[in-house]
Amino acid sequence: MAKLNNALLRSGICIILVTFALVGAHAQTDPLPSWNDTAPKKAIIGFVEKVTKENTPDFVPVTERIATFDNDGTPWVEQPMYVQLAFVLDRVKELAPKHPEWKTTQPFKGVLDGDMKAVAATGEKGLMQLIAATHAGMTVEQFQQLVTGWLATAQQPKFKRPYTECVYQPMLELLAYLRANGFKTYIVSGGGVEFMRPWTEKIYGIPPEQVVGSSIKTKFEMVNGKPVLMRLPDINFIDDKDGKPIGINQYIGRRPIAAFGNSDGDQQMLEWTAAGDGPHFMLLVHHTDAVREYAYDRQSSFGRLDTALDEANAKGWTVVDMKNDWKTIFPPEQ
Amino acid sequence: MAKLNNALLRSGICIILVTFALVGAHAQTDPLPSWNDTAPKKAIIGFVEKVTKENTPDFVPVTERIATFDNDGTPWVEQPMYVQLAFVLDRVKELAPKHPEWKTTQPFKGVLDGDMKAVAATGEKGLMQLIAATHAGMTVEQFQQLVTGWLATAQQPKFKRPYTECVYQPMLELLAYLRANGFKTYIVSGGGVEFMRPWTEKIYGIPPEQVVGSSIKTKFEMVNGKPVLMRLPDINFIDDKDGKPIGINQYIGRRPIAAFGNSDGDQQMLEWTAAGDGPHFMLLVHHTDAVREYAYDRQSSFGRLDTALDEANAKGWTVVDMKNDWKTIFPPEQ
Repeated sequence: MAKLNNALLRSGICIILVTFALVGAHAQTDPLPSWNDTAPKKAIIGFVEKVTKENTPDFVPVTERIATFDNDGTPWVEQPMYVQLAFVLDRVKELAPKHPEWKTTQPFKGVLDGDMKAVAATGEKGLMQLIAATHAGMTVEQFQQLVTGWLATAQQPKFKRPYTECVYQPMLELLAYLRANGFKTYIVSGGGVEFMRPWTEKIYGIPPEQVVGSSIKTKFEMVNGKPVLMRLPDINFIDDKDGKPIGINQYIGRRPIAAFGNSDGDQQMLEWTAAGDGPHFMLLVHHTDAVREYAYDRQSSFGRLDTALDEANAKGWTVVDMKNDWKTIFPPEQ
Repeated sequence: MAKLNNALLRSGICIILVTFALVGAHAQTDPLPSWNDTAPKKAIIGFVEKVTKENTPDFVPVTERIATFDNDGTPWVEQPMYVQLAFVLDRVKELAPKHPEWKTTQPFKGVLDGDMKAVAATGEKGLMQLIAATHAGMTVEQFQQLVTGWLATAQQPKFKRPYTECVYQPMLELLAYLRANGFKTYIVSGGGVEFMRPWTEKIYGIPPEQVVGSSIKTKFEMVNGKPVLMRLPDINFIDDKDGKPIGINQYIGRRPIAAFGNSDGDQQMLEWTAAGDGPHFMLLVHHTDAVREYAYDRQSSFGRLDTALDEANAKGWTVVDMKNDWKTIFPPEQ
């Protein structure tokens, strides 16, 4: 009997030690160390703890824990211009020697002269010409290589570091925290899906199949007996504003329970998330830090935050004041 | 000392027991019990063992283990007609009392009279009219409810059981076996993505976000202050033939390393998979069992297997002879 008790005691101690080890590992880590201890951090943690607590009315099964993130301006920088636009401009300059006619034809002339007003004046037609010249006429693998090669050397002009390091450390922590709590994290961006997929896994831990974005059409062709997907100069889908809930429904087929954005382009995604039956969480990043990053909102030509900010304030969505709520902006230099 | 030894001995026994339990569970189970011990089963297991063996040239990291499955005729029955077409016909009959004009207008008259030749004669225009009448003009949630409700009562005419039980037991085992080996399993079907998503998780263990299919357009609208996605009578994407690699690239953004189909509609998906740089596996289900299921291939109007069978034979893709390679066809009745 003493022996049995002894054995039971030892098993018990084992279990207790293991339990302590697990609980300890859980309790001692602040999941969001780059966030100040202000309202947004509390709201995030409160939401995650609520939906992960089993046997409570707000519990959400793991399979339904879908979180969608805008890209430009949400986990990475979008000023002084969208990163993909910087890629377009650099690509035009690189290809220009083969296209002497570009010296006199808009929108290419504007790009080569650094005259962005002239480029903008060409409107949607000009944009399509730029996309056709820089994004189409090659296979999906070739485009992927171009993007990867460009990102390896291009630098963000203000911070003088690669764009892939101009990502927000607090948002990287948030992505990891959500995943550690069973969330599936998605990018849902107006940017090109094939522009993002080559690097989202490395930078955000988000695999290609969890990236939703704008796209051009592709064509299946046999080249020397080998199938390729050729990129065509035709828009397939614009994943912005109304397009975001449409894209979410089309690609994911589930409504997110948490959505993160920074501009009016994300408003419908947050509205769609807010209209879900169960618990839901909506957050906007407000760029208020002109020193450490940029400060812009209602008047910005990129990433304008105007009507979405009004709706957030009216409905109590979480708004991150970057200057006050984030301890650090970028990860340490690599 | 005796006490210490005793404790160590007990710990040791614990470890050994746990180890045995784990090894035993692994070794004693045939992962594909409904497959006869013929070439396809050996080829599948050989491929999976090859790509999961670490530190070998053919090892494939878990993130790249993408397997795509056609739906109609691959994990579930597609005869005597595509299940989604049966849904369309039933839906037209259900809605007919509200549309007296259908009694005299094709393709609806043909559906109501059971005259499928007359329906077929209306061609693509007629098909679009049927889709508009049965698939559009409602929200995505309403459509999902319609599909779920219909599947709960509809019966496959030959087997007199729900369509969701007319799934192939060997393919269910294959899906589970691949997932147990780190594969992410996808449906890539010419069928409607929103027709499949309501039930793929329950039937195949494949969540909505891993279903790629054909789609109609949707529109984001506010109805009484609540956002909805309305289904429009416009084709968005046809995920068949050339569309399968295009859809895979668009939705998944990675090339599969294993692809499973049963018809010429899957040929390009298998070609795309076969053109990958690393190890890859292509399989066609050949419906050869007129007694236990159906026998059809080159002359069939549904799920025709003709040029894809030639290519499979020429290139050594695995072909399942349903009659000889499958021990059982369907799961036990529920």
